[in-house]
Amino acid sequence: MQCEIITIGDEILIGQIVDTNSSWLGRTLNSEGIDIHQVRSIRDEPEDIHNALDDLHELTELVVLTGGLGPTRDDKTKASLASYFGVELVHHPDVEAHIESIFARFNRNVNKLNRSQAWLPANCTPLFNEKGTAPGMLFQNHNRWYVSLPGVPYEMKHLIEDKMLPLLKKKVTINKVLVHRTLLTQGVPESILAEKLEAFEDALPQHLSLAYLPSPGRVRLRITGRGPKNSGIETLLDENFDVLKEALQSIVYGEGDDEMEEIVGKALRNAGQTVGVAESCTGGYISHLLTRVPGSSDYFKGSLLTYSNDLKQSILDVSESDLISHGAVSKPVVEQMAFKAAEVLGTNYALSTSGIAGPGGGSPEKPVGLVWIGLAGPNGVKSAQFQFNGDRERIIRKTALTALDMLRRELEIDSRN
Amino acid sequence: MQCEIITIGDEILIGQIVDTNSSWLGRTLNSEGIDIHQVRSIRDEPEDIHNALDDLHELTELVVLTGGLGPTRDDKTKASLASYFGVELVHHPDVEAHIESIFARFNRNVNKLNRSQAWLPANCTPLFNEKGTAPGMLFQNHNRWYVSLPGVPYEMKHLIEDKMLPLLKKKVTINKVLVHRTLLTQGVPESILAEKLEAFEDALPQHLSLAYLPSPGRVRLRITGRGPKNSGIETLLDENFDVLKEALQSIVYGEGDDEMEEIVGKALRNAGQTVGVAESCTGGYISHLLTRVPGSSDYFKGSLLTYSNDLKQSILDVSESDLISHGAVSKPVVEQMAFKAAEVLGTNYALSTSGIAGPGGGSPEKPVGLVWIGLAGPNGVKSAQFQFNGDRERIIRKTALTALDMLRRELEIDSRN
Repeated sequence: MQCEIITIGDEILIGQIVDTNSSWLGRTLNSEGIDIHQVRSIRDEPEDIHNALDDLHELTELVVLTGGLGPTRDDKTKASLASYFGVELVHHPDVEAHIESIFARFNRNVNKLNRSQAWLPANCTPLFNEKGTAPGMLFQNHNRWYVSLPGVPYEMKHLIEDKMLPLLKKKVTINKVLVHRTLLTQGVPESILAEKLEAFEDALPQHLSLAYLPSPGRVRLRITGRGPKNSGIETLLDENFDVLKEALQSIVYGEGDDEMEEIVGKALRNAGQTVGVAESCTGGYISHLLTRVPGSSDYFKGSLLTYSNDLKQSILDVSESDLISHGAVSKPVVEQMAFKAAEVLGTNYALSTSGIAGPGGGSPEKPVGLVWIGLAGPNGVKSAQFQFNGDRERIIRKTALTALDMLRRELEIDSRN
Repeated sequence: MQCEIITIGDEILIGQIVDTNSSWLGRTLNSEGIDIHQVRSIRDEPEDIHNALDDLHELTELVVLTGGLGPTRDDKTKASLASYFGVELVHHPDVEAHIESIFARFNRNVNKLNRSQAWLPANCTPLFNEKGTAPGMLFQNHNRWYVSLPGVPYEMKHLIEDKMLPLLKKKVTINKVLVHRTLLTQGVPESILAEKLEAFEDALPQHLSLAYLPSPGRVRLRITGRGPKNSGIETLLDENFDVLKEALQSIVYGEGDDEMEEIVGKALRNAGQTVGVAESCTGGYISHLLTRVPGSSDYFKGSLLTYSNDLKQSILDVSESDLISHGAVSKPVVEQMAFKAAEVLGTNYALSTSGIAGPGGGSPEKPVGLVWIGLAGPNGVKSAQFQFNGDRERIIRKTALTALDMLRRELEIDSRN
């Protein structure tokens, strides 16, 4: 099934928001065998909406529109769809009752604008929204499905998963396979990987393709299988994926869509171990990554964020003379930080960071991007120095991922002993 | 000047990455008077690239293509552009020399794949990339400009700001005004705001429009002015913006694209005050937001992240009997956390959080989303309770923004005394 996504709203075009909906839709619809061949972001103007609908590829069977359904007058999607399909807006008493029940749940009064959201194009099937006031709408027109959803990610996801997909799957059979498997690698640049994998790529059978996805601190390698159902594509993909994994062994840290913090979290949980953090240049980002994961309180205990040198001394017992003679960004300082953090936090492992995230604070001896990472564990304290490039955000992110990978490797070694 | 953006790569369509480039391009090009009327994400396939170029709106004068320029064979943009324009790839010795110099800087060897990046369509002007190996390319064809850039955000931004815009502005005069001003509000839902602003919207003059941008914990209100140069649009926009600001006074926390953490950072710097944090449910996110801002070490000293109850006692001196009788998510606990954090970290202010971010851990008395926020300052300790809705990520984000806003309001009150 071929799908196009149309996201509606000036806010993407003028750069006030980042479109995260399309990415989520891609992932979610793909796993149902629905192939997205285009995403378009357009203005919330009737003319632009009509043009985008007129321009759909002839093979498109499903169109997902997001945004432009709010109660305010800058939202014009509903009226534009009605005029596109040549129908009127009609009042849905059941939708209005549902909007009232949503407001009652949050102890708020329904106003005129909210009530206007119960007026919908005559040809649509309303999708009742349990997370907000704008209902979703499903249309069928000339063998093509159209679904229009609010742009708020949280509401959009709910309507796709709980309302649109169950309804669609009842009515349509999807005859295509679209499968992806992804290998996560760290520490080797894209072009070196590609050189290494030249023969592998040459030997890839029909229906399979390899893609490289570099981002700060990692390269993801994705094999995609695309073709008719029951033609053995899944098996072929698995076999080739195993060959790839074998070839890259030492630099692979995981598979699939797992984030590093999820992989490290699982390893800690499996080993029954705990971790704490002493952060300086990463400013709380390692802790944030670890605690983003639901249930992380099982293995994450806490962290000591000593941004100032004074606090490195008072909270983490870092020696004043080391701070003076070696500076805060140095081997002895991160090692003392990690050691003390494990002790104070009472954890099996502790990570520490100290570096120059920039843009200020660099010097010829210690340029922006210089980072020391420390790791305390059952086998004592170790540390390593890195020179990352990029802006403040990239340096913070690369440092955090590298630190978490150090912990992951250490857990792997320790689990073998 | 009308512009379209085309982002190339399967990774957006299958949801492996989020397209942050378009948003940045929207913001950056807008501020130069360039109006983006469509963003399209397509596959890295010659046919799709050709189709997208054939479908450009007739008024489009500038096309920005990002992605598909890597050295690996899944990247097909360069060859597709050459065939679209009917030209060959030619070797640019100066580009190859430049690629060699970039590798020398990072102490890496140039391989065959990297060298292939010096072959470019015959009709392009290369844009030398100082941050990576893929050069940008500028084309002029039938009164339309095309610029093709790597998809890596860091390289793309550099090529737009330092190479493409200076070159374009030398050759083209932009005769249109496109201006935005944005007011940041917290605590009042979109539909209530819209009711309040009905008369204001009715009275908005031609060339001006108002948009509502809700996101977790805030609603941004944007007035856009769009029209011919020298027609007084900027003045009209400023006047109406002042009216809007006056009308919403109490719930406005800032203006423009500033993030809450930048606004709080400025307020702390101006007041010569310092802050520390004791985080529980936010897991380091408040500290991460504060330290994302360059120069934050001037006012941010550190934070104590006590995820476990044991650490709340041992590090923050929270009374064991309060933890037992009131639970960790309670007024006495966050107040003790904030008080002790300010003392241990030696800061003028300290924020604290304790709540149930979910998805697990909720109960009928303390459901998921229940959060206590504490604030210690020169006038003692205060705290407030909130019930946020949404998933783990939204609850963490709303808690952090609400905590930072509490600090902002307190700084405002204290600065008046």
